[in-house]
Amino acid sequence: MFDVRTDLAVEETERVCGQQGLSHGISVHEEEYENECIKVTTVCIETENAGKSLGKPKGTYITLEAPRMAEEAADYHREISEKIAELLHRLIPEKKEVQTVLAAGLGNRSVTPDALGPQVVDNLCITRHILKEYGNLAFEGGDVTSLCAVAPGVMAQTGMETREILAGVIRQVKPDYLIAIDSLVARSLKRLCRTIQITDTGVCPGSGIGNYRHSLTEKSLGVPVIVIGIPTVVEAATIIQDSIGDFLHEISADNATAERDGSGKKLEEIQHLELTRKILPPQLNQMFVTSKDIDAQIKQMSYMISEGINITLGSLTAV
Amino acid sequence: MFDVRTDLAVEETERVCGQQGLSHGISVHEEEYENECIKVTTVCIETENAGKSLGKPKGTYITLEAPRMAEEAADYHREISEKIAELLHRLIPEKKEVQTVLAAGLGNRSVTPDALGPQVVDNLCITRHILKEYGNLAFEGGDVTSLCAVAPGVMAQTGMETREILAGVIRQVKPDYLIAIDSLVARSLKRLCRTIQITDTGVCPGSGIGNYRHSLTEKSLGVPVIVIGIPTVVEAATIIQDSIGDFLHEISADNATAERDGSGKKLEEIQHLELTRKILPPQLNQMFVTSKDIDAQIKQMSYMISEGINITLGSLTAV
Amino acid sequence: MFDVRTDLAVEETERVCGQQGLSHGISVHEEEYENECIKVTTVCIETENAGKSLGKPKGTYITLEAPRMAEEAADYHREISEKIAELLHRLIPEKKEVQTVLAAGLGNRSVTPDALGPQVVDNLCITRHILKEYGNLAFEGGDVTSLCAVAPGVMAQTGMETREILAGVIRQVKPDYLIAIDSLVARSLKRLCRTIQITDTGVCPGSGIGNYRHSLTEKSLGVPVIVIGIPTVVEAATIIQDSIGDFLHEISADNATAERDGSGKKLEEIQHLELTRKILPPQLNQMFVTSKDIDAQIKQMSYMISEGINITLGSLTAV
Amino acid sequence: MFDVRTDLAVEETERVCGQQGLSHGISVHEEEYENECIKVTTVCIETENAGKSLGKPKGTYITLEAPRMAEEAADYHREISEKIAELLHRLIPEKKEVQTVLAAGLGNRSVTPDALGPQVVDNLCITRHILKEYGNLAFEGGDVTSLCAVAPGVMAQTGMETREILAGVIRQVKPDYLIAIDSLVARSLKRLCRTIQITDTGVCPGSGIGNYRHSLTEKSLGVPVIVIGIPTVVEAATIIQDSIGDFLHEISADNATAERDGSGKKLEEIQHLELTRKILPPQLNQMFVTSKDIDAQIKQMSYMISEGINITLGSLTAV
Repeated sequence: MFDVRTDLAVEETERVCGQQGLSHGISVHEEEYENECIKVTTVCIETENAGKSLGKPKGTYITLEAPRMAEEAADYHREISEKIAELLHRLIPEKKEVQTVLAAGLGNRSVTPDALGPQVVDNLCITRHILKEYGNLAFEGGDVTSLCAVAPGVMAQTGMETREILAGVIRQVKPDYLIAIDSLVARSLKRLCRTIQITDTGVCPGSGIGNYRHSLTEKSLGVPVIVIGIPTVVEAATIIQDSIGDFLHEISADNATAERDGSGKKLEEIQHLELTRKILPPQLNQMFVTSKDIDAQIKQMSYMISEGINITLGSLTAV
Repeated sequence: MFDVRTDLAVEETERVCGQQGLSHGISVHEEEYENECIKVTTVCIETENAGKSLGKPKGTYITLEAPRMAEEAADYHREISEKIAELLHRLIPEKKEVQTVLAAGLGNRSVTPDALGPQVVDNLCITRHILKEYGNLAFEGGDVTSLCAVAPGVMAQTGMETREILAGVIRQVKPDYLIAIDSLVARSLKRLCRTIQITDTGVCPGSGIGNYRHSLTEKSLGVPVIVIGIPTVVEAATIIQDSIGDFLHEISADNATAERDGSGKKLEEIQHLELTRKILPPQLNQMFVTSKDIDAQIKQMSYMISEGINITLGSLTAV
Repeated sequence: MFDVRTDLAVEETERVCGQQGLSHGISVHEEEYENECIKVTTVCIETENAGKSLGKPKGTYITLEAPRMAEEAADYHREISEKIAELLHRLIPEKKEVQTVLAAGLGNRSVTPDALGPQVVDNLCITRHILKEYGNLAFEGGDVTSLCAVAPGVMAQTGMETREILAGVIRQVKPDYLIAIDSLVARSLKRLCRTIQITDTGVCPGSGIGNYRHSLTEKSLGVPVIVIGIPTVVEAATIIQDSIGDFLHEISADNATAERDGSGKKLEEIQHLELTRKILPPQLNQMFVTSKDIDAQIKQMSYMISEGINITLGSLTAV
Repeated sequence: MFDVRTDLAVEETERVCGQQGLSHGISVHEEEYENECIKVTTVCIETENAGKSLGKPKGTYITLEAPRMAEEAADYHREISEKIAELLHRLIPEKKEVQTVLAAGLGNRSVTPDALGPQVVDNLCITRHILKEYGNLAFEGGDVTSLCAVAPGVMAQTGMETREILAGVIRQVKPDYLIAIDSLVARSLKRLCRTIQITDTGVCPGSGIGNYRHSLTEKSLGVPVIVIGIPTVVEAATIIQDSIGDFLHEISADNATAERDGSGKKLEEIQHLELTRKILPPQLNQMFVTSKDIDAQIKQMSYMISEGINITLGSLTAV
C-alpha cells in the first residue's frame, strides 16, 4: 500500500546494489564532465531477471546529474541542452532512418510539479506541418527531422487514459519514434530538479506523478518510446518511512547495545515497517512533497529539455 | 482571395434570401422567448442544391440569439444554459442510445477569441473514467451519459491537423457522438458574442478561426458531429469590403442621379469590388477584428456552454 | 529551525488546550449546521498573553469546516458561499460605514497550492471603477459596496515585499477595509482543503506559504485587515516530526514498561526531538506536502470564496 | 469620435511631414544596420508647438524596425536584444546614478495582443530583493542595477487606474526610473510586430490598447518614465477609414477629371469623412484588428525585450 517508490533507476540500483553488490545482468557506467559540472551514469538492465530485482523493465537508463541545473545561468543551460542532445543520439539512430518523431508532454499542466511535459511541448520547434507543405526548403535545405507534438492531459481532465489518446494519434500519424517527457517521482529530496533520466524502456505502470495505469511502451504503442524525465516530487509516504528509518538508525547508533545483536535488528526493522504503516493516514497516498520554488525550476528545466530536443532533431544548431 | 466570409447560416440566409426570397430546399423557423429575451432561429437546408446556394452543407442550423448574453447576470446565464441543453436534445437522440460522448474544444487556447473551445472543455463534468470504474453508483444511480473530452490545439502547436488527432482518439474511444465547440467567424460586428449556433453538419473546410483545412464531419470521422459555435471575430477583409459597400451606398443616397440608373449601379458594384481588392494589402488575409473585452466575454460564454452540455448529459440537474 | 507550524488557530488551540485545558483569555464557541454539514468554530484570543501561548495575535478566528467542501456539487457550494458571507458580516460592520473594500489575492499564481488568492481575485465582481463613473445606477440602485482588487505576486516575481505593494496601493485608494485571501499551512493533512479560516488579525510574519516577512496588519497598513485563508499544504518538516512522534507513541503502546516511568518518557521526548532535527536534511525547509488533485480543489474553493465576497458586498444576491 | 489613431511618432511624422515637410522643432535622424537588417529612426520633438502638430508630447522617440523580428531565429533575436540595450542606454544615464529601476508590464494578460507587457515582466531577471539581502556579492561582484517589477493589470480587473497602482508602488519603493512596457496601436498593418518604439515621454492619455485615461509621466509619477512599446493592433475604425481613403484615391486615379480640380477634391474629402462616420457602427470603437498568429509573435517579442532590459541592467552579459 505504501511502497517506497522511485522512478529513477539510478536510485534503485544504489539501494539494491549498495546492499548486495552489482547483480548479474546489471551494468553501471559513469562519466564525469568536470568543466560542465555534469555527471552521466548509464545503467543497463540486460536481463528480465535483473529487471525484476530492480523493479524496472529491461533497457538503458541514462542519468545526467548537474547540481547547478536549477541556477539561472543561460550559458550553463545551453551546455546541458547540448549534453541532452548527445545522450538522445545514443538511444535514437541516425536521422536518415527517422522520418517523423512524435513528442508527448505527459502530466497535468495545472499542477506545477507535474507540468514539465506540457511546458516542454510549448517550446518545441514543431516542423511536421511545415515540412509537409514546403519540404526541407523551408529550413534552407537543412536536415530537419519532422516533429509533431501533443500534450494529452490527465485522466481527470479528459476521462481517457494517456495511452488511449497516444495510441490513437500514433495510428494516424505513424511516427518512427515517440519521445515522452514526464515529471518523475524520486526517493531522495536531493535529487529533485537536479537529475535528468533518459531511457528507452517507455513509461511503466505506476510511473510518473499521474500514475498512468497502463504502460506506454513499444509493445503497447507499436513504436519505440524514449522517455525524458526529471524528478520533481517525492511521495509523502516515502519521505516519512525513510525519515523513520533514519531516526531509528540514529537511535541505535546512540544505543550501542542494540547494535550488538544483528539478527534482532533485522526483526525490529520489519516490526517498525508494520508500525509505520499503522500510523500513516490513508490520504497520504494522494500526497506528494515538492519545493516552494518549483515554478521557477520547472520553467528553466522545461526550456533546457526543449532546446535539447530541438538540437537533436536539427531545428536548432549546436554551437 | 478575399471572400466575404461567415460561419453563421443565419447570416448567409439573410443575405441570399433577403435578395432572392426563400429558395427551394431552405426552411426557416423562428421562436421568441420573451421572458428570457432569447430568440431561436432554425434554418434547415434540405437539399444539396440549397446548400450550394448558401455555401453551407445540408443539415440543421439552430441559432440562439440573446442580446444580454455578455452581461454579468448569473441567473440569466443559467437560463441560457438550459436553453442550450434543450436545443442540443433536438439534435441528439434519447440518452439510452447514446452511451459515450466525446467533446472536442477546438481552437487555440493562446489567442483569446479562439480560446472558447478549450475553455469550455475546462469546465465540463468529465465522467467516462468514473463510470468505467464505479458505474452509475458514483452518481447515486442518476442517468449520466459518459463524457470524455480533448482540446486538440492547432496545427502551429502540434504539427498535426485537428482531424488527425480526433480521428485517432475516436478510433480508440468509439464515442456515439462528437460534440465540437468552436469560435466562429461572423460577417457582422453586432453578432459577436451575442449568438450561439448549434448544428449537426460538422465543421467544414474554411470554418473556424484556425481554418481547419480538412473537415470534421460524420463522413470523415465516422461518428455524428454536433458543433456548438459562437462568433467571436469578423475577418478584417470582410469588414473593410462591407464598409466600402456601405459607404458607396451612402454616396448614392446623397447623389440622386446615381440612383436613377439601376443597371449602371450594378456595373459599378463589380468595378468597386475590383478596386477594393486592389487596395487590400495581402497580410489582411491573416487579420481579424475582435473586441477589447473579448477575454471577459469568452470566459462567460464558455461557462454557459459547459453548463449546457453538463445539463444535457445528466451530470448537472436543471432547476 | 524546524518548528512545527500551523496557520490555523483552531489547530493550535486543540494542541495547547488539549494538554492544558482552556487558558485564561481564550474562548472557544462551536456551532453545528447539520443540514449543511458545516461546523463553525470561533476562537477568540482576548489578551496578549493568551495570544503568546498560542503563538497567534489577539483577535477573532472563525473556522468553517465542511467535509464535503471539495466535492463537485454546485448547490452545496452555494450554501458554503452564503455561510462565508454571513461570517464575513460578523467581522465587517454595516455597509453604510464601509464605502470601499480592497481585496488582495496573496500568493504565487504559478505554484498550484499557493494560487488560491490570485484565483479568488479573478472571479470577484469588481465595481469601484463602475461606481466611480456611473454610481449606484449601474446596479439598478442596489446597495453595492465599491470593490477593487490586486494580486500582488510574490517577492521572487516582483523583487518587492507584498507589504510594500499593498501599502502603496492603500495610500492611493484609501479603502475602508482590506480583505486578503491566502493559502495557509496546516499541521494535519486531514484539514487540507476542508477548512476555511476567517480572521480580523491580519497576516503575520511566517504566515502563508510564501512566508511574507513583514506583517499585513491594521498597524502596518493603516486599515483593518480581514484574512480569508484555506490550508492547502503541510510543511514537510512538520509531517515528518509528527509522524516520528506518532511512531514513538505506537512503540511505547506496544512496550508497556516504557509507559510506567512518566518522567523518563518526557526526557526521551526531548532527546527524540534532537535526533529528529539531526536527520532532517536542510532543504526540507523549502519543501511542502500537498495533494495530487490540488488543482481541482483550488479551482472549486476559489470560486466559493469569490461568491462569498460578492454576496457580502452586495454585487451578488443571496437566494 | 473615430479619430485615426497611432501611438507611433514615426507614423505621425510621416503623415504630417510627408504633406508639409519637416516642421520647425522636429528633427529626424536615421541609422541603417545592414548586417542586422535593422533600421533605427530617432524623432526628436523639441518644442511644445511641434508636439501639438504631431499630437505627441515633447521628447525623444527612437524607433527600431526589423522586418525579420517575428521570424524564429535565436541568433537574430539576440542581436535585436543587444540593440534594444544600446538604445535604452541613450535614454538612461550611467548606472552609477541609477540605483533602482521599476519595470511595469502594462496591459491585459488575458487579451493576447495586450499581453506584451505582462509577458516581458515574467522573463525579467528580478534582483532588488537579492541585492537588498546579499548585496552585489550575489552576482559575483558584478555591477547589477536593482530591478523590481509589477504587472498592474487593467481597470476591468482591478477597479483601479494603472496610474493609481504605480503611483502607490513608486512612493514605497522610490525607484530612480520607471520602465513601462506596453502594446501599442499602429496605423498601418505592416508595422504590426515589426517595430519597437522607445521613448522618454511616458505613456499619454489614449495610448495603449487599454486606454489608460490618466497619463504615466514624470510629471504625474515623480520619476522619469521610459516606455518600450510594440504595435500589436490597429484600431478597426482606423483601418476602415484608411481603406475608404485608399479606395477613393483609386477611383480618382481611374477618373482623371476628378483629379483636375484640387479644391473640389479637398471638399470631397471632408464630405467623405462625414459619410464614413455615418456608416461606422458605434461598437466599432471597442474593436481592434490583429493577426491570427499574434500568440507566437507576442511570445517571441516579449522574450527579446526582456533580454534587452536584462542586458541594460547588467544581469545578463552581452556577447
